[in-house]
Amino acid sequence: MAKKKMARAETAESMGARQRDISVSEFFLKNRHLLGFDSPRKALLTTVKEAVDNSLDACEEAGILPSISVELRQVSESRYRVHVTDNGPGVVRSQVPKIFAKLLYGSKFHRLRMSRGQQGIGISAAGMYGQLTTGNATRIWSKTKNQKQAHCIAVQLDTKANKPVILEDVEVDWLPTFYGEDPDVPMDQFRHGTCVSIEMEAAYVRGRLSVDEFLKQCAIVNPHVQLHYRVVLRSKEPAPTDDQSQLLSTEPGWTVFARAVKSLPPPSAEIKPHPHGVELGLLMQMLKDTPARTLKQALTSDFSRVSDKVAHYICDTAGLSPKARPARIAHQESEALFKAINAVKLMRPPTDCLSPIGEEQILAGLQKEIAADFYTAVTRSPAVYRGNPFQVEVGLAYAKPGENKELGADDPIRVLRFANRVPLLYMGGGCAITKAVSGVNWKAYGLAQPRGALPQGPMVVMVHMASVWVPFTSESKEAIAHYQEIIRELTFALQECGRKLSVYLSRRRRAAEAERKRGYIEKYIPHLALGLREVLQFSESEQEHVEHQLKDMLERTHLQV
Amino acid sequence: MAKKKMARAETAESMGARQRDISVSEFFLKNRHLLGFDSPRKALLTTVKEAVDNSLDACEEAGILPSISVELRQVSESRYRVHVTDNGPGVVRSQVPKIFAKLLYGSKFHRLRMSRGQQGIGISAAGMYGQLTTGNATRIWSKTKNQKQAHCIAVQLDTKANKPVILEDVEVDWLPTFYGEDPDVPMDQFRHGTCVSIEMEAAYVRGRLSVDEFLKQCAIVNPHVQLHYRVVLRSKEPAPTDDQSQLLSTEPGWTVFARAVKSLPPPSAEIKPHPHGVELGLLMQMLKDTPARTLKQALTSDFSRVSDKVAHYICDTAGLSPKARPARIAHQESEALFKAINAVKLMRPPTDCLSPIGEEQILAGLQKEIAADFYTAVTRSPAVYRGNPFQVEVGLAYAKPGENKELGADDPIRVLRFANRVPLLYMGGGCAITKAVSGVNWKAYGLAQPRGALPQGPMVVMVHMASVWVPFTSESKEAIAHYQEIIRELTFALQECGRKLSVYLSRRRRAAEAERKRGYIEKYIPHLALGLREVLQFSESEQEHVEHQLKDMLERTHLQV
Repeated sequence: MAKKKMARAETAESMGARQRDISVSEFFLKNRHLLGFDSPRKALLTTVKEAVDNSLDACEEAGILPSISVELRQVSESRYRVHVTDNGPGVVRSQVPKIFAKLLYGSKFHRLRMSRGQQGIGISAAGMYGQLTTGNATRIWSKTKNQKQAHCIAVQLDTKANKPVILEDVEVDWLPTFYGEDPDVPMDQFRHGTCVSIEMEAAYVRGRLSVDEFLKQCAIVNPHVQLHYRVVLRSKEPAPTDDQSQLLSTEPGWTVFARAVKSLPPPSAEIKPHPHGVELGLLMQMLKDTPARTLKQALTSDFSRVSDKVAHYICDTAGLSPKARPARIAHQESEALFKAINAVKLMRPPTDCLSPIGEEQILAGLQKEIAADFYTAVTRSPAVYRGNPFQVEVGLAYAKPGENKELGADDPIRVLRFANRVPLLYMGGGCAITKAVSGVNWKAYGLAQPRGALPQGPMVVMVHMASVWVPFTSESKEAIAHYQEIIRELTFALQECGRKLSVYLSRRRRAAEAERKRGYIEKYIPHLALGLREVLQFSESEQEHVEHQLKDMLERTHLQV
Repeated sequence: MAKKKMARAETAESMGARQRDISVSEFFLKNRHLLGFDSPRKALLTTVKEAVDNSLDACEEAGILPSISVELRQVSESRYRVHVTDNGPGVVRSQVPKIFAKLLYGSKFHRLRMSRGQQGIGISAAGMYGQLTTGNATRIWSKTKNQKQAHCIAVQLDTKANKPVILEDVEVDWLPTFYGEDPDVPMDQFRHGTCVSIEMEAAYVRGRLSVDEFLKQCAIVNPHVQLHYRVVLRSKEPAPTDDQSQLLSTEPGWTVFARAVKSLPPPSAEIKPHPHGVELGLLMQMLKDTPARTLKQALTSDFSRVSDKVAHYICDTAGLSPKARPARIAHQESEALFKAINAVKLMRPPTDCLSPIGEEQILAGLQKEIAADFYTAVTRSPAVYRGNPFQVEVGLAYAKPGENKELGADDPIRVLRFANRVPLLYMGGGCAITKAVSGVNWKAYGLAQPRGALPQGPMVVMVHMASVWVPFTSESKEAIAHYQEIIRELTFALQECGRKLSVYLSRRRRAAEAERKRGYIEKYIPHLALGLREVLQFSESEQEHVEHQLKDMLERTHLQV
């Protein structure tokens, strides 16, 4: 029998003796559903998502038109090897181990700039999950522009210390053919890139929560990417090995999501925090850490929207010298400073840091993917939550009932969610987007809607939030947190689309109504004419004349509807 | 103007140079919504919740009947000081700073035992949020049984290093009167305890998501606790100071949630992991770390439900010697071992580690709090997810339409969610419990239900999950992750309650139907009798007799309904 410890009454001392540090890797290993690894099916999607996000970010930052291939290769009944390869700038050798096998390590956390990755967790978490379920290492091939050879590195994560352990580190040839064909990208942009390969317990299942769906939606909101995708199932293929050359064999079955736009989206700028979004404690920390030598300099250089004049005004209001040493501002003074900052009027944060998809491209995407009768889209002006600029976009497609088999007239509408151009497939119930959609009164726009729930109808709503910092409800980045300011913007955008939908629906309803009336009248006009003939003793030709006149009148009335 | 950096094309080198470590405190500071601090209102609730959870856990582990006081004291328009005091065992002085000002530090993470806290984040996160929004330190008073004096410690969190900084550390008198009165608890159990005090930007709002509601629900599922609660608003009281003596003044306004049960719930045992829930990677790690000297010893001592015989059988199947040194088991061999473990039949995990609320107490709680006509409750047998035992309980209260003003007949039903006896108020949409409730076909039990949504009706469903490790969807512990096994158990429990509801509803419907028919018949019996009298030439007394006989027959038929 297993031994077990029955609980005894503890004392402060016995409880104190059990207190221990918890490494961040141990924490996430035990809580791996926080990272999106709660089921074999979701694990596969999360891994692809993290790798593709990284590839797209790297390509865009380096100004390279992205060409990405994704391969899922079944190794055994419940094991897959995920390969994601890009033509990005590559990763310098010294950084590979930490980037791919250390949680909370990255370049995107300590800045305010719109990007898909932001936490420095994702891809290492995928590797950690692979390691947990198969015992195998993550393998990375990478070549930068300046390197002659690619390096191939196998790493594992020491979860107790949250540190990478390098198992292999060799130079190999870089094999650009790996990407498939891409006529838009010059050949020299295939001489560098990164390929990550992780083996894991996983399940490949088609459907709304699948890798297929993720990549499809990914292609819609990233029309500048060329995506090659295939799934190699074991029943059709021999089990693969770690040998890269085997991956290069021309196997059948690549699905290509072709590039629709041959230029990158405009690059987004990095910004400084806006003073109105900074809490007192953070302000104190920033004053302590700033390299600036005076308070005025700290205010103008560490924050956005603070001019010399504004800085002087703030210092005056707080009763502080603009030449004061920032680190010396004591608690009491920083509180005065904090109040002065929040009392001053400031321009809203700069918004060139955001790169929305745009109404035109949203419409194009919807029209391409959803068979419907009515389309509309709205891109809102940027707004701010907690000092972070963000922007909301909504697209809407309404099909005539019965004409799109995927959209039932009595079903809840379908909501497609995106954050910084990344499709969000899971955790819809906990997402601010779903909350906002359910919160809008769709009955006012002509849809059925159970109380507090999604409206019903043959409709798809697509919602995108772009921000320098998207507040996700968990590290797996599947749902947006319920910030008031965000829900408000979402609601406004949805209502704007809703009003347009309402115009369409009532026009359609009036047209149907008129059609119905006209049907009635047309049916009865001959009888009417016959009746008139009998009553008024018309001749047959007179009867025909009356019929024509009545019909004529009807046409004219109908046109006015 | 603020300076801003327009994005230029980056290279692998420039990107590599920007890679940095992210401290776990920095991570959660920026992602504080993950910890439940996304709004001033929720921040207040989260702080109370974390403090009360810790107090209850500590009291129960030390075998002390808990007596807890919660005070929210408004300091300025948007600032509150939260005080939570318990009669628990206290915290040894050396552990106070780390427990209250270091994320990922605690005694509950590295064990498998049912408790409210499990992550070693909560209370430090509350202190960190207080520090961020006010710049002030967390203050802790604590006294253990063996100490003559209490210690009073003020700590802040150095977020860059995730380390506590002690600002003050003095000995003071412990003042047990602080708890209010509690006749069930002997006086010597008030001579020790812990009080934590955190000042923060917050908003006190009444309603379903309030501290009031949390404490009310907390008292329902923890009938052994005595809770004293008060909110001191600024309009009524002078602003308080850090001076503890002021807190002790007998101010009016304590609400008491009185203890309903005078004994602690049975203590729950700590268990070892069940072999069938351990992944290959974890198995390899455990073999590396075990103090056991032989494989057999490692199997029997580090896992539950592995007897000597089973260990031998596993070793045989894997082709390994029971006397092998665990640390020497190579990759290939551990995979064989893993397969052997998963092929062997094992007893399910022990379940004395779980302490459910129980059907009787759930019914009592519902009857006490919800005015309704029909009550039922189900406690399922324990089940297992990922090797972790868990147990699901469901209670259901149905009010006659119109009789409970809080429960509208056309509104979605109200769902009360609990995990390890802690009420979950936020993030219902993302919770496995909501998913399970929406997933059940309530139409079959007689309720209206829009597709994919909660059913509608004057009903409250209360759901409790007890486990040695509850998988929450985020660190703020507001919703349970969507594990298949958990949703399945929830569904079974809900269906069981649903069937009982269905019997009640159809009986009520038949009774109403019979009542209606009886009404009709009673109305027409005199007419019938009169008609018979006329047709059959009855005398008046004969007519009366017929009337009586008809009514009699009716009564009898009615009783059979």
